[in-house]
Amino acid sequence: MDIINSLITSNDKKILLVVIDGLGGLPKDGKTELESARLLYLNELAEQSSLGLTIPVDYGITPGSGPAHLALFGYDPIKYQIGRGVLEAVGVGLEIGKDDLCVRVNFSTIDQNGIITDRRAGRIATELNQKICELLSEKIKKIDDVEIIIRPGKEHRFVVVFRGKDLDTNISESDPQKEGKSPIKIKALSSQALKTERIVNIFVTQVAEILKNESRANYILMRGFAKHPNLEPISQRYKIKPAAIATYPMYKGIARLVGMEVLGCDETWESEIKTLTKYYNDYDFFYLHFKEVDMKGEDGNFDGKVFLIEKFDALLPQILKLKFDVLTITSDHSTPAILKGHSWHPNPFLLNSVYGRADGIKIFSEASCALGSLGLFQQLKVMPLLLAHSLKIKKYGA
Amino acid sequence: MDIINSLITSNDKKILLVVIDGLGGLPKDGKTELESARLLYLNELAEQSSLGLTIPVDYGITPGSGPAHLALFGYDPIKYQIGRGVLEAVGVGLEIGKDDLCVRVNFSTIDQNGIITDRRAGRIATELNQKICELLSEKIKKIDDVEIIIRPGKEHRFVVVFRGKDLDTNISESDPQKEGKSPIKIKALSSQALKTERIVNIFVTQVAEILKNESRANYILMRGFAKHPNLEPISQRYKIKPAAIATYPMYKGIARLVGMEVLGCDETWESEIKTLTKYYNDYDFFYLHFKEVDMKGEDGNFDGKVFLIEKFDALLPQILKLKFDVLTITSDHSTPAILKGHSWHPNPFLLNSVYGRADGIKIFSEASCALGSLGLFQQLKVMPLLLAHSLKIKKYGA
Repeated sequence: MDIINSLITSNDKKILLVVIDGLGGLPKDGKTELESARLLYLNELAEQSSLGLTIPVDYGITPGSGPAHLALFGYDPIKYQIGRGVLEAVGVGLEIGKDDLCVRVNFSTIDQNGIITDRRAGRIATELNQKICELLSEKIKKIDDVEIIIRPGKEHRFVVVFRGKDLDTNISESDPQKEGKSPIKIKALSSQALKTERIVNIFVTQVAEILKNESRANYILMRGFAKHPNLEPISQRYKIKPAAIATYPMYKGIARLVGMEVLGCDETWESEIKTLTKYYNDYDFFYLHFKEVDMKGEDGNFDGKVFLIEKFDALLPQILKLKFDVLTITSDHSTPAILKGHSWHPNPFLLNSVYGRADGIKIFSEASCALGSLGLFQQLKVMPLLLAHSLKIKKYGA
Repeated sequence: MDIINSLITSNDKKILLVVIDGLGGLPKDGKTELESARLLYLNELAEQSSLGLTIPVDYGITPGSGPAHLALFGYDPIKYQIGRGVLEAVGVGLEIGKDDLCVRVNFSTIDQNGIITDRRAGRIATELNQKICELLSEKIKKIDDVEIIIRPGKEHRFVVVFRGKDLDTNISESDPQKEGKSPIKIKALSSQALKTERIVNIFVTQVAEILKNESRANYILMRGFAKHPNLEPISQRYKIKPAAIATYPMYKGIARLVGMEVLGCDETWESEIKTLTKYYNDYDFFYLHFKEVDMKGEDGNFDGKVFLIEKFDALLPQILKLKFDVLTITSDHSTPAILKGHSWHPNPFLLNSVYGRADGIKIFSEASCALGSLGLFQQLKVMPLLLAHSLKIKKYGA
């Protein structure tokens, strides 16, 4: 990647990276979700594009959203990792600063002897979670010089951000991962983390005191201590002016972590495309994320996923009329409905550019992409390909 | 590659590597140059061959001729680099020895205050360049024990080779890369380069004195100090007896740098094939280079490129009748006419051998090669494939 960096040049060509989350699938009755969808515009576009399949991390590796997106954005997902606490924090919509220590926390139940009887507090309702978090936020605003920020997640999960100087991630977790045990004492694993140890333990004690009369959520377990990954900003790495358009906090958050500007927009696909149109002139790289396809996959809703892929197809002309110099339509990872979760399968990948070789393949599907001239390649190579097709990479050697 | 080296064995099977420079292209009106050409013999050969696409350096990287050829010859183009000065020197037809220090030089214009007013001396005519170089060669033959060799390039560019003991590349360049500045003083960057600093600065002073009355080319700027890359000879690396047939100095030069014997021949494709025929018995590996296809691409002459590809097709039977055990037809890099320059796109690759799997694909094109059984692979793997198909690589392990 160092070679690419040294060869990057900027110009006014515009790149659009469309990510249909969880697009790739697996067959039910012989056809995948993508193959089952009626694709008028995507198939037409495929014929004039280069196709391929991308491997998110490595053969057989099912990525989370973090590594899958890092690879898409050109950051080696093995070398660079976004800590769990940070992913959870950006997932609930928090903006993370360089000094913040982020932790994901479970409400849990302990008995009178301090033994954990339920690590997830019976998966309390999200509404209860929100109420408790509100209460905690009111009662615990600061510990010493460290600001405390609490945000509810789903069911028993929430996020706490410790905002202050000299906090450290090198600290042990308190979740013993089993019921019938005591919470593990949180301890600094190096002298740099002694302040963190003290603040975090005070926090746990204060929370336990406030929650002592709760029937189920009467204790907390903490793990995934993490700070900002401090990645080289993508604008610097690739000399682009990048903007992100997404509706879910997680994806806005990851985009922010790599240094993209996140554009405000409403929570519909139509609004996302409207935002893209509005800001077309202001940036030369757009990451445009469509989330709900993945959720249908996670739910095991094959037909619902097909329906949303067809919805994207119907919206495609609005994107095409903007005439990006380089347009890619792909995914971060596959989410086959029959698996009800992410998978390791490669992502269908389409690249349209006047400087690309049109493969003439008239179908956009997992199988047709396997026949494309771009072959089966690492997701990490997506950015170099996009940059090359927009003539933003100079010649290597003479 | 170390594994390959340890497994190499020699035999009398003969390999021919045909490089049609800049062969791959991009579509104009829906077809690439290669797809537009009428290929009688190449298509017939394709049917009986294994096809694939090669990536010269990496995804999105557009290589110069140096890295592209190093990869073809089995030298990692990231690890091994041929210095600029050396490439320029071999490009003007100089044979480079192990002790030579090669520099590329610009004629430039400075004013009375020593400020550069034109880094390229108004791109003086090549004929004037030749005259000045002749004059300089006459007047400066030696500085101390160092022989001075001067050769004109195109317009304002020329090459100087300092031939002597203890010369070093660790020396600063004099080109400030901008007009309105003084030339940068050339300085040794380590004690080993002190002799070089002295010789080079004397050279600059002498040249400036000789050129002081020239209106435009009255000064020189030096950069790209480089020595012979000292690559392990390809004959040793692969236990082959290699010969190169090319008409342009650059390619003869690169072939010499990897230790091939360069065969003399006239400057036509017909003469190159005659030379191949003549020396068929004397070597077991031939690199046969056809240059002009790339030049048509560089000129943006789509039809001219198509015409030359068809010309190659017409000559192919003369090559086929020699019955090489392994015949590969490919390119160093693509040169799409619509880009008027090298590109990052993979090279069409054809391998014909009785020990190869014939893919039965009846077309030789970028798109058909994408469907071939060799897949999309690193150019660095071309030599191992050629050697394997000529049974020159022993079994690995038991």
